[in-house]
Amino acid sequence: MTRFDVLTVGNAIVDIISRCDDQFLIDNKITKAAMNLIDAERAELLYARMGPALEASGGSAGNTAAGVASFGGKSAYFGKVAEDQLGGIFTHDIRAQGVHYETKPKGTFPPTARSMIFVTEDGERSMNTYLGACVELGPEDVEADVVADAKVTYFEGYLWDPPRAKEAIRECARIAHENGREVSMTLSDSFCVDRYRGEFLDLMRSGTVDIVFANTQEVLSLYETDDFEHALTSIAKDCKIAAVTRSEHGAVILKGGERHYVDAIQIEKLVDTTGAGDLFAAGFLHGYTLGRSLEDCGRLGCLAAGIVIQQIGPRPMMSLAEAGRTAGLI
Amino acid sequence: MTRFDVLTVGNAIVDIISRCDDQFLIDNKITKAAMNLIDAERAELLYARMGPALEASGGSAGNTAAGVASFGGKSAYFGKVAEDQLGGIFTHDIRAQGVHYETKPKGTFPPTARSMIFVTEDGERSMNTYLGACVELGPEDVEADVVADAKVTYFEGYLWDPPRAKEAIRECARIAHENGREVSMTLSDSFCVDRYRGEFLDLMRSGTVDIVFANTQEVLSLYETDDFEHALTSIAKDCKIAAVTRSEHGAVILKGGERHYVDAIQIEKLVDTTGAGDLFAAGFLHGYTLGRSLEDCGRLGCLAAGIVIQQIGPRPMMSLAEAGRTAGLI
Repeated sequence: MTRFDVLTVGNAIVDIISRCDDQFLIDNKITKAAMNLIDAERAELLYARMGPALEASGGSAGNTAAGVASFGGKSAYFGKVAEDQLGGIFTHDIRAQGVHYETKPKGTFPPTARSMIFVTEDGERSMNTYLGACVELGPEDVEADVVADAKVTYFEGYLWDPPRAKEAIRECARIAHENGREVSMTLSDSFCVDRYRGEFLDLMRSGTVDIVFANTQEVLSLYETDDFEHALTSIAKDCKIAAVTRSEHGAVILKGGERHYVDAIQIEKLVDTTGAGDLFAAGFLHGYTLGRSLEDCGRLGCLAAGIVIQQIGPRPMMSLAEAGRTAGLI
Repeated sequence: MTRFDVLTVGNAIVDIISRCDDQFLIDNKITKAAMNLIDAERAELLYARMGPALEASGGSAGNTAAGVASFGGKSAYFGKVAEDQLGGIFTHDIRAQGVHYETKPKGTFPPTARSMIFVTEDGERSMNTYLGACVELGPEDVEADVVADAKVTYFEGYLWDPPRAKEAIRECARIAHENGREVSMTLSDSFCVDRYRGEFLDLMRSGTVDIVFANTQEVLSLYETDDFEHALTSIAKDCKIAAVTRSEHGAVILKGGERHYVDAIQIEKLVDTTGAGDLFAAGFLHGYTLGRSLEDCGRLGCLAAGIVIQQIGPRPMMSLAEAGRTAGLI
């Protein structure tokens, strides 16, 4: 028995969510469906142009930790907020979900990170992230006992954007492997892959990372190809397990020569894609840490992703444990 | 031409919204479907027990001003926030909706008001409001030129809870009537009526208020009766126009001896009743300031209320102007 099933590490972010039309994205030079990094000045400018919004705790790996907990798994999270109201909201929400979260907040400046998320008619989300306090995450934030006692430590590729988080990740990976645990990452975003392609490939090829999550665009970006089959063959060689999500086409799980194709779930209405990949990872890792087959892990991932895209906000408002039982998956 | 159709005045609040079951309300002594006033200490206690939440700008009269603007009307708002992140969110959201909002924020302590709203399975909302910076609203916050130039000035009965807001309201009513404008109020909540019954009746009987909004429970509480017909007859005598909302039974508009019954709209699924009364008032006042018949005013009210209860959060995420056009009402 380990104390934790899944530890996740990421940028601790509060989402500010509003609807807009495609023209707004064009007028404001926001790359659609991507995570656009912005500075404080642009954050102010975009907020002034944004319509009325909703706020919800987010952050890719934070959503994954919350998803694992909602499935009934034991999860923990490392991520940095500031001592401000948004930091209080982030801390409340992740703890209220049952996630272990004890990263020390960092004063009041820079403030807690926020991402202005514009959701277009087609349900696609375009994110504009001001990293704020996230830039302070470093190796001093690694709770070694938590890493040592978590079956899987999972982190975001996005952590290569702030300056010292990657040092924390290398430390986590070292502790995890020393204790016989596994390490997992998500490639996060195709533009993020483009910024750190060499380092991400090195993490995989050096064995620092065992399990990799990616979507179609990210895996194509990783290998600088438009040949999906070539990308799949390549990623299968570069890590022990790869889970590649394919939007409405479900996912494919690769392990050595094995391939498992899993269908997406039927949805009533696509509302907001925010959190789809994060929740896929939550479902997959929950199944994985329960020792389920890779196919079942993929099914749990597709279930959680399918649920979160039918609501506004990146963390499911319903119990995933209940949804998993209803679907006969747990 | 006036500069504003509707000016609303109220407690400026950010909602913190979460689902819970009925047992949670019982265990925490929260009066269901009511607005429960809480102090800072209880706010902390309840937040610690609350599940993961969403945040959205709220405040009864703030929702009404936002609703009028969403219909395409010109609205303004007076209400007090603090200079903190929640105050920034409130200010952003109401201005982004196109509402004139220039009330000076009050330092950083007490902080911006928040209401922890628990939504049960049946869609009913139970509010727990910490008034924070709202207690600072006073007559110095009255923008006389705005009041003078608004067809209707509307305020919440809730404003009798903070200490000096009622002075601001009396000042607004004086300016409004001196300029030939009308004054309107909502009775807000049956327990609020119970706290200020005598003063509310005096506002109506003295002619300080012309148009009164109430729901069934509030009008029954006002006249301390369980005879709805008696309550209707009484309120028709005590003000020029009364609009009484009756949940799924629609609304009845009373003016002297006239009565206009309006049906509720058909809804697909009741999600969260938060904002129903506020949006009814928005639709009604929008129609009223356009010079529409009382029946049409009621229909616009029912439309807006019906829309807001099918989503989470108290301000419609869709354009009410568009919804009104689709329904053939504007």
